[in-house]
Amino acid sequence: MSNQRRFIRYSEAPLDVLYNDMITGKRSALAHAITLVESTKAEKRNLSEAILSKTLKHLRGGITYPNKSTVSFRIGLTGPPGAGKSTLIETLGKYLTSLGHRVAVLAVDPSSAKTGGSLLGDRTRMTELSRDENAYIRPSPSSGTLGGVTRSTNEAIILCEGAGYNIILVETMGVGQSEFAVKDMVDMFVLIIPPAGGDELQGIKKGIVEVADFIIVNKADGELEAPARKIQAEYTSALKLLHRHHPLWNPVVQRVSALKNIGLEKAWETMEHYHEIMINAHELEKVRREQYRVWMWNHIRDNIMDRFRKHSKIHSNVEIIENQVMNEIITPGMGADRLMQIFSGD
Amino acid sequence: MSNQRRFIRYSEAPLDVLYNDMITGKRSALAHAITLVESTKAEKRNLSEAILSKTLKHLRGGITYPNKSTVSFRIGLTGPPGAGKSTLIETLGKYLTSLGHRVAVLAVDPSSAKTGGSLLGDRTRMTELSRDENAYIRPSPSSGTLGGVTRSTNEAIILCEGAGYNIILVETMGVGQSEFAVKDMVDMFVLIIPPAGGDELQGIKKGIVEVADFIIVNKADGELEAPARKIQAEYTSALKLLHRHHPLWNPVVQRVSALKNIGLEKAWETMEHYHEIMINAHELEKVRREQYRVWMWNHIRDNIMDRFRKHSKIHSNVEIIENQVMNEIITPGMGADRLMQIFSGD
Repeated sequence: MSNQRRFIRYSEAPLDVLYNDMITGKRSALAHAITLVESTKAEKRNLSEAILSKTLKHLRGGITYPNKSTVSFRIGLTGPPGAGKSTLIETLGKYLTSLGHRVAVLAVDPSSAKTGGSLLGDRTRMTELSRDENAYIRPSPSSGTLGGVTRSTNEAIILCEGAGYNIILVETMGVGQSEFAVKDMVDMFVLIIPPAGGDELQGIKKGIVEVADFIIVNKADGELEAPARKIQAEYTSALKLLHRHHPLWNPVVQRVSALKNIGLEKAWETMEHYHEIMINAHELEKVRREQYRVWMWNHIRDNIMDRFRKHSKIHSNVEIIENQVMNEIITPGMGADRLMQIFSGD
Repeated sequence: MSNQRRFIRYSEAPLDVLYNDMITGKRSALAHAITLVESTKAEKRNLSEAILSKTLKHLRGGITYPNKSTVSFRIGLTGPPGAGKSTLIETLGKYLTSLGHRVAVLAVDPSSAKTGGSLLGDRTRMTELSRDENAYIRPSPSSGTLGGVTRSTNEAIILCEGAGYNIILVETMGVGQSEFAVKDMVDMFVLIIPPAGGDELQGIKKGIVEVADFIIVNKADGELEAPARKIQAEYTSALKLLHRHHPLWNPVVQRVSALKNIGLEKAWETMEHYHEIMINAHELEKVRREQYRVWMWNHIRDNIMDRFRKHSKIHSNVEIIENQVMNEIITPGMGADRLMQIFSGD
């Protein structure tokens, strides 16, 4: 890009400059636009709405990405600590840019709300991929509830697609329910596991295996090749039991070594195959439409419940009523009625 | 009971009469009290709150059930159509009353909201068990949303326990998320499956296998004995993978034939064993307290979202905004903001 060396302080530039630079692929413009959608300040909200609306209009016009595809591919990646997620994403990302794709990596990490930043130090992660001019790596939002983080991640996906990135890798870094939130914002959901049993797999949330479209057993090299095969066979049988006769897709389990760069081409073939099937059956479009609707209602629910909890009279009564409910003085329904009365009574 | 033949029209009787008859085990009084908690009419709410409060106080005083136990046992039972749930519950129920237990059977069936009653015709189900004087079978609530039905089921559990029933079997009859709702209101969650693969097991909701404490393969007799063994082995391996090293309990899979009365004693041993472990580790108490808290917040959320959706200005705008979101004119977050503004702006 010709403007790669031009330094612009976007916070002082007109919105059109920011938007045009973003659309034409300037990474610092994309970074600033994402910062705007992450902001919770009311005065930033108008700017972020304007840039999102323009980007959506641009995307609706139909765009062709550098790799000639016209539809983006949103892939969610999750896995327990120790699965080698970052290494896998970096190796996969480099392979994809070598094929002509443009790759954005986003993270969902509500745990950073407490620490004020990712524990792993995003700046030092995926150093090689971050130097690749066809890749954009976004550190996880530095604060917010899960609801806030998923909203800004949803909107960051749109901005990345507008900026010409056709593959969006969304990585869960947090704990709790972030895996399920990511599942609901991507086209394909990939679970990465280490070739280990027992305690090392404790980090997998209940229910995740059943919603995965693809399971990758990473670190399948050297001494771990044999245990990786075993795990692969076990998950293959379990998936047969858990996911039966999906009309379009039967989840698969593959071995990979991200470190030794073994099996990633085959894993990408599986992902592309899935993407094509979903596009051809018009399933991708249908799923995305439904995801948007669900996100909207999730945002509303989070917003309203947040207001409810912060309401001054609720705040001063909630502990007493919660205790009465937990100690079986009143039923949960009665507790709910009382709090609702307090909430409505002003 | 001496009052077994006395006919009382409880809708015209003082509350104390209803309460005393219920506590001393008169089934028609229990039935009327449950009808009260199922009512959504405001004038009935005071009565139902009064009777629930009295019952909770009675239970807090500590009661000893006819079988000498002091802690009730709430068991959720779910399974796809064709698993033989009703037959299993009836056979298990009769076995339990023969051991000196008093058994209540409740159903969670939000689908009855549409049909105005269970499709299966509750009145004709479990005819033998319903004639047993130590059993009480409650037809599923005849109307309501899932939220409404779970609230009344929660409160019916309390009333049954107050009426001296120490084992509460909660059966899911509906579709959708009712299995997860039941999981959150019981001490133990049992999945009943037929000895079949493929299409016949399609009815199992994703994620249910991973939250089951106990899987029963029913209909394990005659020709189905062999496939039942196969299914048992498959689920046993899958569970090993999905539930690892729970500090107190590893889920088990057992074969049963409810029709031929084979294996039910062993299945009950497993359930009793689970109950004892949870009580001895003070886990039952902890789980229940947390369930109460979660129920309360679920009720509040359902209630508020219901108000939101029914709000006149939301009602007239929601379709337009939902369509804009689904057609990528605005982001889900922007759609949520607009609806929140409409909601707050009056």
